[in-house]
Amino acid sequence: MNPIIFLDYAGVAVFAATGALSASRKQLDVIGFLFLACVTGIGGGTVRDLILDVTVFWLANPDYILICLAMAVLVYFTAHRVESRYRLLLWLDAIGLAAYCVFGAWKGLVVTGSGIVAVVMGTLTATFGGILRDQLAGEPSVLLRPEVYVTAAIAGAVVFTVAFVAGLPLLAAAVLAFLVAFAIRGGALWFGWSFPRYRSRPGRRPEDIR
Amino acid sequence: MNPIIFLDYAGVAVFAATGALSASRKQLDVIGFLFLACVTGIGGGTVRDLILDVTVFWLANPDYILICLAMAVLVYFTAHRVESRYRLLLWLDAIGLAAYCVFGAWKGLVVTGSGIVAVVMGTLTATFGGILRDQLAGEPSVLLRPEVYVTAAIAGAVVFTVAFVAGLPLLAAAVLAFLVAFAIRGGALWFGWSFPRYRSRPGRRPEDIR
Amino acid sequence: MNPIIFLDYAGVAVFAATGALSASRKQLDVIGFLFLACVTGIGGGTVRDLILDVTVFWLANPDYILICLAMAVLVYFTAHRVESRYRLLLWLDAIGLAAYCVFGAWKGLVVTGSGIVAVVMGTLTATFGGILRDQLAGEPSVLLRPEVYVTAAIAGAVVFTVAFVAGLPLLAAAVLAFLVAFAIRGGALWFGWSFPRYRSRPGRRPEDIR
Repeated sequence: MNPIIFLDYAGVAVFAATGALSASRKQLDVIGFLFLACVTGIGGGTVRDLILDVTVFWLANPDYILICLAMAVLVYFTAHRVESRYRLLLWLDAIGLAAYCVFGAWKGLVVTGSGIVAVVMGTLTATFGGILRDQLAGEPSVLLRPEVYVTAAIAGAVVFTVAFVAGLPLLAAAVLAFLVAFAIRGGALWFGWSFPRYRSRPGRRPEDIR
Repeated sequence: MNPIIFLDYAGVAVFAATGALSASRKQLDVIGFLFLACVTGIGGGTVRDLILDVTVFWLANPDYILICLAMAVLVYFTAHRVESRYRLLLWLDAIGLAAYCVFGAWKGLVVTGSGIVAVVMGTLTATFGGILRDQLAGEPSVLLRPEVYVTAAIAGAVVFTVAFVAGLPLLAAAVLAFLVAFAIRGGALWFGWSFPRYRSRPGRRPEDIR
Repeated sequence: MNPIIFLDYAGVAVFAATGALSASRKQLDVIGFLFLACVTGIGGGTVRDLILDVTVFWLANPDYILICLAMAVLVYFTAHRVESRYRLLLWLDAIGLAAYCVFGAWKGLVVTGSGIVAVVMGTLTATFGGILRDQLAGEPSVLLRPEVYVTAAIAGAVVFTVAFVAGLPLLAAAVLAFLVAFAIRGGALWFGWSFPRYRSRPGRRPEDIR
């Protein structure tokens, strides 16, 4: 089996766990955990495969669904032990983001051969699971958080694409890009890294913007 | 014509009506009724067909669009006679959910042959129309309501899949599964059935959850 | 090159600009501008192509992505000069709506041959980019605004479909339909045109509606 598939399983599993954590924060019932785990776990990859016009990955291999269900049950019975479930959610989301920006870029590159498409697919599919989760659970979107988020996905996708096209072995390029993406997002979570936010005029507040 | 197609028409029509009722609650104009009726009526099935990689059902047969438009007009001229439009919306949504979890499971089973995929397709497509409606209309998501919702869709999809694979005639399996799903969701609406909600520690309130 | 392709480029570019303007209103960083510009610029056309089961347009030609990135940078460095960025967003959105309802109807007609499908595809794809933008940025949906919006897209799609099927040259039908759609949406923005809103009983307020 192609070792990069491991990133796919890892991405699905940790995104599923973030979906279940979101369900725990909304105090849903156990079925709500299963539902949000599945949608978050398979959402990003589903959109990726639809756009690339390849068979949606979990149709061909329902193991992915079972992984999502297992993660939901695991979170249901262990989440109360966690000090801050929202911190855990953000860190797992960071792992999922790093795994999926690399895997998405690889799949985009293999299917279309275009580096630009690879970077876009990696970025979109790394971020889409979290967007879907936050929309469904009615949480503030992770996209609008102040620290660096999408940047980590773009960086991972670019590093993978450049390294792989430049001739690095697949596994080396994947590990390197995963580490870059995770380091950026993890650093942002740990140190609060952020880019300067847009401000049309100094002192203006969001409420004033028409 | 395959008699199970009736479930598809019924699901589209009642979901379209819920979209129009949502438009009435938001006091949209008549075009808003048409738009929300179409999106809610055909949304779930569109996602189902995209994932299954079959022709989207309303491309092949635009009658579905005409049904949505007719339901929108009907609701526009009759909704004021209803005591509580939100109750009506929830009950019609229950019928749509029951029809679509069976039809989605059947289509998933026919296309992929996998029981797990059938259950997931039935569940996702039964719930997706309502999710889309609530997101577009800016209403609180039906997913996050306290009573049992997704469970009814899962139960209907499981009952259909098991009964059909076990050899029951298609129509019998479909009617049985429809009744199970509708009884669960209807019972939940009528009696307020709910599962215990997740609570990390007794007495903790949602606002305390980090 | 088919001259109607120009409408596609124009639609992508102005929708991308509205996404970037939305990012500026949310005071996102420059990466947020790039992300919202891409999602808004290519979102409507992506859904259109998925439903029509043709290759997603930006996979075949990554220039569209570069256009979105260029628009994001342009807006990032010029938006502060604009008196009201929300007014500008609405007017650019009107241009995108007019361009995309025509282009979507044309593509729907070419692929399926059905006039009803053409009108639905034109309408859905003209409105979907804006819906996605508002959902992602957490802004009130442009769909729920009081003035005429979806109507302009329907009118443009209907005029194009009727004119083209009636034998008008492609370019003439496209220009005519674009002008109709833009005139309706522009008139609605300028003069505040709106249809009567649904009201179940005179004097009832939205809060009273159950």
